[in-house]
Amino acid sequence: MDQLLPDPVRSLLAQLQEKLDPAAVVLDPSLLDAYAADATGRGAVPLAVLRPKTTEEVSTILRLANDLRQPIVVQGGRTGLSGASRPQTGEISLSLERINGVEAIDRAAQTMIAGAGTPMQTIQHAAEEANLYFGVDIGARGSATVGGNIGTNAGGIRVLRYGMYRAQVLGVEAVLADGTIVSSLKGLAKDNSGYDLSPLFIGTEGTIGVVTRACLKLHPKPKIERNAFVALPSLAAARELLARLRVELSGLLSAFEVIFPNAYEKTVHFMGIRPPVEIGAGMYAMIEIQGQSPDQDNERFEGSLAQALEDGLATDVVLSNSLRDAAAFWAIRDGINDFLDSAHVHTSFDISVTLRRMEEFLDAVKGPIDAVDPQNQTYIFGHMGDGNLHYCMSTIAYTAVADIIFRGIANVGGGVTAEHGVGTDKKHYLSYVRSAAEIDAMRRLKRAYDPNGILNPGRVFDPA
Amino acid sequence: MDQLLPDPVRSLLAQLQEKLDPAAVVLDPSLLDAYAADATGRGAVPLAVLRPKTTEEVSTILRLANDLRQPIVVQGGRTGLSGASRPQTGEISLSLERINGVEAIDRAAQTMIAGAGTPMQTIQHAAEEANLYFGVDIGARGSATVGGNIGTNAGGIRVLRYGMYRAQVLGVEAVLADGTIVSSLKGLAKDNSGYDLSPLFIGTEGTIGVVTRACLKLHPKPKIERNAFVALPSLAAARELLARLRVELSGLLSAFEVIFPNAYEKTVHFMGIRPPVEIGAGMYAMIEIQGQSPDQDNERFEGSLAQALEDGLATDVVLSNSLRDAAAFWAIRDGINDFLDSAHVHTSFDISVTLRRMEEFLDAVKGPIDAVDPQNQTYIFGHMGDGNLHYCMSTIAYTAVADIIFRGIANVGGGVTAEHGVGTDKKHYLSYVRSAAEIDAMRRLKRAYDPNGILNPGRVFDPA
Repeated sequence: MDQLLPDPVRSLLAQLQEKLDPAAVVLDPSLLDAYAADATGRGAVPLAVLRPKTTEEVSTILRLANDLRQPIVVQGGRTGLSGASRPQTGEISLSLERINGVEAIDRAAQTMIAGAGTPMQTIQHAAEEANLYFGVDIGARGSATVGGNIGTNAGGIRVLRYGMYRAQVLGVEAVLADGTIVSSLKGLAKDNSGYDLSPLFIGTEGTIGVVTRACLKLHPKPKIERNAFVALPSLAAARELLARLRVELSGLLSAFEVIFPNAYEKTVHFMGIRPPVEIGAGMYAMIEIQGQSPDQDNERFEGSLAQALEDGLATDVVLSNSLRDAAAFWAIRDGINDFLDSAHVHTSFDISVTLRRMEEFLDAVKGPIDAVDPQNQTYIFGHMGDGNLHYCMSTIAYTAVADIIFRGIANVGGGVTAEHGVGTDKKHYLSYVRSAAEIDAMRRLKRAYDPNGILNPGRVFDPA
Repeated sequence: MDQLLPDPVRSLLAQLQEKLDPAAVVLDPSLLDAYAADATGRGAVPLAVLRPKTTEEVSTILRLANDLRQPIVVQGGRTGLSGASRPQTGEISLSLERINGVEAIDRAAQTMIAGAGTPMQTIQHAAEEANLYFGVDIGARGSATVGGNIGTNAGGIRVLRYGMYRAQVLGVEAVLADGTIVSSLKGLAKDNSGYDLSPLFIGTEGTIGVVTRACLKLHPKPKIERNAFVALPSLAAARELLARLRVELSGLLSAFEVIFPNAYEKTVHFMGIRPPVEIGAGMYAMIEIQGQSPDQDNERFEGSLAQALEDGLATDVVLSNSLRDAAAFWAIRDGINDFLDSAHVHTSFDISVTLRRMEEFLDAVKGPIDAVDPQNQTYIFGHMGDGNLHYCMSTIAYTAVADIIFRGIANVGGGVTAEHGVGTDKKHYLSYVRSAAEIDAMRRLKRAYDPNGILNPGRVFDPA
């Protein structure tokens, strides 16, 4: 054991070595480094890493840590971008990686029970093998886990159809800071037998309790999935087309992603591919449907897009005619991040705004940003169907720009983070969009379940 | 003012008469009676009725009541069946009836902001006028209000398609026991800017805070709504048909209600109508679709039902061919309650169970119930698509029967109430299906937000 650890921590870890299985307590400094950062590459090396295999082991860990008031950072796939799972100095990492696996699928109820450490991709594959479908998909699917996805209320590309991760959770098993286990894994579609405790753990970024298992909602597996790459005259046209398709393709529409012209042009150039639709349009969109009646669904999709062309809402439409086409379309959407990396565009604002006020926001912030940093490069893309834009920049004036962006967001009634979460990185801006009364109500919740503040301390907000 | 009121209550009411508008404080005994009962007809006359017109007035009321530790019963349409809104002796009623009305509809975002006292039917009509649709419908639609629906997480006939009331709530404005106002009415589809506080007030039966306004999610208005009345060989066949239709009619299926044979036969006889499908089948179902493409949707619906007949999953199918047909089908579903009233069948268990274990539950409780009350009459119907059966009885042995039912439910991992809530009437049975740790976690939440226990005291659970 590291000689530099404070005595009480040494004693805590020694107790845990006795109570847990040997592989659960990791102290070897060479192994700790892997847990020191999140997807931003930043973080501190944790004092130790605990890798329990059961909910009961998580309970034992928290009970002892709580007695000692030892800060714990809760870790899943460490793919977060805001700091919830990024270790701060003096924290012990609690990694859920070994509570991993799909335990049961109920085909009739369309539900699945899985461990918190199960990667999203494993969930997706297990659902498909049962001829079912999991409704959330994000780029980090290979590493991001059920527990992290619940803690951060993951979003992604199909919120428009299936809702946020919150909407996939029928119930969770979780451990409170004092070791209390609360379990709601019955998988009932409809249950008002007392308070539903599960929402306490969804989107609260590991600050209220540690999710160990979850019962997830599944959907019928689509028989058809088809994409269209569309050039449009403007963002306003994209908004109008979206509103129209939400009605006309109700029950089919599964994604509506926008890519602003400079992001589209530079990405296809960076990828060295032939652009699927003309360069020089005012806006680009990738639209996806998922359905159960291939012939009818194709007909509806093609009919709506043909009408959009006729009405001037779109200027060019290319439909996927094979899985390869569809993959090529999505590759462009995913390629944006590779282009941004190559261009050293590392600042990303994860903006939430109602569709109605999207242009008002964009217009309001552009001038002030150009004024404080005339050299800024800005690329915008995102989940338009959900009012979620990723506003990506390279700027030498981060603090001034962030203030312009977040005040701009507050002015149009938006949110400072649509899907990435607050973590440590955005807590300064929380008060721009949430009232003092709301933040106080959040602190009441925190104090009720974690009075000693040991779980992900300093995430979302600071203690009062 | 009533001379029998205790002095501190008289002083509280006098202060409120000064601070609120005159119509907000009702003391006239002849007017108080109207607030004395819920839909069960039971209850106590409240000491007074407060009818604020704004969130700020609710805040004033609660701040003063909290200082005095005066118990408050929160009332919407008083259509509840479990006692959450039923006054207990010594309580003052806080009625949200005057915070009534639809304030704003955002067509692009498909959202609506409405006051807590707005009846469900008003919400439904306002949505339809905007060419949109509200996803929840219950029998009490004319009286039940937004606030009560949120507090009790209302269910109804289309949970299968649109989810519980919880799924319709994008955000709420609510007042905590100490008068703190928390407001989240931005209507963002995607927002992880700090804890989502709204779930605290959904399904917690008015014990955590008083909802004053809400932002509700709307859906595209269906272009076609069509029903089928179906006779089936058995409950097992109904389950199989449901599983099949959930896939084949994905995106269309909006209700799947079952009616057990004796309930069907006695109801059509009671109504004096010609039964839409043959008497003598093993089970009956009412199936509804809602869609955007009438021709295609009709074709899919008719195709699936024809196949069900061919496969022996159904023995008789009648499709609605007009709005009048559809209304006639629903009239039978609604007529069950009239028949039950006429037959003095007044005990109703609101059971939640996974589809997989529905028959196991029914088989397990029948013998023991017949043993304790050989004369019992039992009629079953409900929202099969959600695993929710209304198990209605006339029995002379309520306590023994309730124990059999609720232990039976616990044995199959079900819930003691799917949609009606716990209130006062089922709190004794809560521990059958929720662990001591869970109930303790509920109490922590209550203490965090209502430390003096003034809001709907004794509902859901007793103070520790």
